[in-house]
Amino acid sequence: MSGLDAVSIITAKRDGRALTDAQIDWIVAGFTAGRVPDEQMAALLMAIVFRGLDRAETSRWTAAMIDSGSRLDFSDLPRPTVDKHSTGGVGDKITLPLTPLVAACGAAVPQLSGRALGHTGGTLDKLEAIPGWRAQLSSARMREILADPDVSAVICAAGDDLAPADKRIYALRDVTGTVESIPLLASSIMSKKIAEGTAALVLDVKVGSGAFLKELSQSRELARVMVELGADAGVHTVALLTDMQTPLGRTAGNALEVAEAVEVLAGGGPADVVELTLALAREMLALAGIDAIDPADALADGRAMDRWRSMIRAQGGDPDAALPIARHVEQLCAQDSGVLRRLDAMAVGVAARHLGAGRARQGDPVQPAAGIDIHVKPGERVVAGQPVLSLHTDTPAALSAACAALEDAWDIASPGTAVPASSLVIDRVEA
Amino acid sequence: MSGLDAVSIITAKRDGRALTDAQIDWIVAGFTAGRVPDEQMAALLMAIVFRGLDRAETSRWTAAMIDSGSRLDFSDLPRPTVDKHSTGGVGDKITLPLTPLVAACGAAVPQLSGRALGHTGGTLDKLEAIPGWRAQLSSARMREILADPDVSAVICAAGDDLAPADKRIYALRDVTGTVESIPLLASSIMSKKIAEGTAALVLDVKVGSGAFLKELSQSRELARVMVELGADAGVHTVALLTDMQTPLGRTAGNALEVAEAVEVLAGGGPADVVELTLALAREMLALAGIDAIDPADALADGRAMDRWRSMIRAQGGDPDAALPIARHVEQLCAQDSGVLRRLDAMAVGVAARHLGAGRARQGDPVQPAAGIDIHVKPGERVVAGQPVLSLHTDTPAALSAACAALEDAWDIASPGTAVPASSLVIDRVEA
Repeated sequence: MSGLDAVSIITAKRDGRALTDAQIDWIVAGFTAGRVPDEQMAALLMAIVFRGLDRAETSRWTAAMIDSGSRLDFSDLPRPTVDKHSTGGVGDKITLPLTPLVAACGAAVPQLSGRALGHTGGTLDKLEAIPGWRAQLSSARMREILADPDVSAVICAAGDDLAPADKRIYALRDVTGTVESIPLLASSIMSKKIAEGTAALVLDVKVGSGAFLKELSQSRELARVMVELGADAGVHTVALLTDMQTPLGRTAGNALEVAEAVEVLAGGGPADVVELTLALAREMLALAGIDAIDPADALADGRAMDRWRSMIRAQGGDPDAALPIARHVEQLCAQDSGVLRRLDAMAVGVAARHLGAGRARQGDPVQPAAGIDIHVKPGERVVAGQPVLSLHTDTPAALSAACAALEDAWDIASPGTAVPASSLVIDRVEA
Repeated sequence: MSGLDAVSIITAKRDGRALTDAQIDWIVAGFTAGRVPDEQMAALLMAIVFRGLDRAETSRWTAAMIDSGSRLDFSDLPRPTVDKHSTGGVGDKITLPLTPLVAACGAAVPQLSGRALGHTGGTLDKLEAIPGWRAQLSSARMREILADPDVSAVICAAGDDLAPADKRIYALRDVTGTVESIPLLASSIMSKKIAEGTAALVLDVKVGSGAFLKELSQSRELARVMVELGADAGVHTVALLTDMQTPLGRTAGNALEVAEAVEVLAGGGPADVVELTLALAREMLALAGIDAIDPADALADGRAMDRWRSMIRAQGGDPDAALPIARHVEQLCAQDSGVLRRLDAMAVGVAARHLGAGRARQGDPVQPAAGIDIHVKPGERVVAGQPVLSLHTDTPAALSAACAALEDAWDIASPGTAVPASSLVIDRVEA
């Protein structure tokens, strides 16, 4: 009943039994090494979609994926390490101001980030809009930047040797309808975050139209499982559940979001981006044991901006260079006067992808200047004929698909209607 | 929601939606042609294990597997065609006397049979114990034998062009823990039986320890789905649910079972084998519209035996040749006196496989002379020291594994205990 062969492991999970540690280690290592073929792992993954994994199984599965590669260790740095991960949204540029802000307050931030896929943006694509900035760093260079007291923040791509089992399993899940499993989602995210060597982690788990999981109950469950995985691996982990019904801030797209992040670092920027940046910074600093500093002060007095500039320079970027500008801009205007009741995150994300800001499949190129300016946010007044969105692209042929995606993207309520402000931070989950 | 791509089809079934005809046709044909890779079919098969297929989906899946190859057509033969299929058991040699018996009564019987696997025996392996007999026939030769009024019965291997999709899907199910699905089991059996061109079909669905499905409710469900598939494809189909708690007859093993079948054809043989042979023959003759002949008469007066001899000769066999005899025979004796309460079919099947009568995996050779004689059947009296079983093998090193498999194979109740006879035919299922 606990055999170390693929069929015994598949049938155990199919029949609702918990896998043993030895079975999990054997199948993850065997699959990564090519001894367990794709068809057997695919059948097991589908059985996991239906039967789930319990806490002990999920922790072991995560550990087995970490053990498939190398693990970074920053425990000897003079500063406490703390990182943030977002499950992905539209206009979510929070990593850009947050990382230098938390570093400016005294922590070291080892951010391994990803790229845009589907309707969600990717932090590395955003930063690559900055002339000269490079996402690929060696582990030695990453450590050097983190140890530098004037930088101590890095945002870079994960190396190929970090949880390679996760990369292989994710690629298989993508083609076998087995992405939608909370233990598999949680272990995929946490294997990379635990392997990157951070001592503490704050998770931003999105809820709503623009989120990967639309339902609050699912997002809450994902948050709980990830917080437990962090605890089981000795990484202090806290999760915030945050609203992703409408895009964050007033931009979606790579260079447009960098410009907005710089506004926030300069002490301005949209209220929701500032609010979420500060909420996540306070969680990160608390986990790092840094409680004497208010991150709002570090935004206001320019320390966060100084840190941003040194962080961008450390990775070859020129913080003073002009950002790219799209060749074509088209405005979409309000058809009525009133109050914007709703602006759908998913529709804006899909439209931004069509414009060139994102990619439909891994490896596609992105346009750094493409994206969407959001002139009116939910709850704000609008006059008929006034622009609601501006669409930026280098490829005007893409405009029709983007406009089609935006067909039902917003509602305008009659003037004077009270639109209740939705709460940005919905809940907090800790171990 | 009804896309013709593998991920849409997998996720539709995963989420509990019925697949469309076009989706089923696309995925079965695509998999058979190699356009849909094993990992995607494996994920779909596991989703089917959990979500099932409804009647329309199962019929279409079966039809798609039939359409992957060629289909035999015997509708122009002068005699009505009728076949029998057993889901597999221990000591189940019924096909051997049944096929010539039904042919002797006026039907044509196109039996495509299989080989031993696991604890169950295979009709082709049994007949190959007869010197000269050949399982491989061309379709033209099969038709010629069926058209011959002195034979009109054939037992042979299915050609590679008969439902090739089933062969590929079954091989994948075998290594991905997806064998145990009633619609997949039913469609696998029925695709071959419908493609072989029989006009009517009687199913012998086994229940109990030696059966593939142990529970009556599962066997009843399998029978119902197969009868429906037959009806949907225009093949008159009836199923009997029959007991497989204990082996059929007094032998398990290839040459041993041929000898027992010949005893039955000679008018003798064990009562349970005679009873089930006649019950199945009456169902087959009723479906073929032949109701003036009692098959018991054809057994008693030698017509069935004559037909057996011509059937064996038509495939190159010598019905008068001596059958092979094993080099080693070991007796297992009763430890107490009393009444045999139980003799476990699965234990006897596993032991016979160890002795060389069956195979652990496809392609392994079998020993024609290996097997087990059953000296005492449940309900019969036994005296301490008297043999209960005789184990036959050419490889005495196999005896220890066979004896280990038989450790708890039987119970002896105190003398005078009444052991209720279990009913051989448990139920009958028709459309």
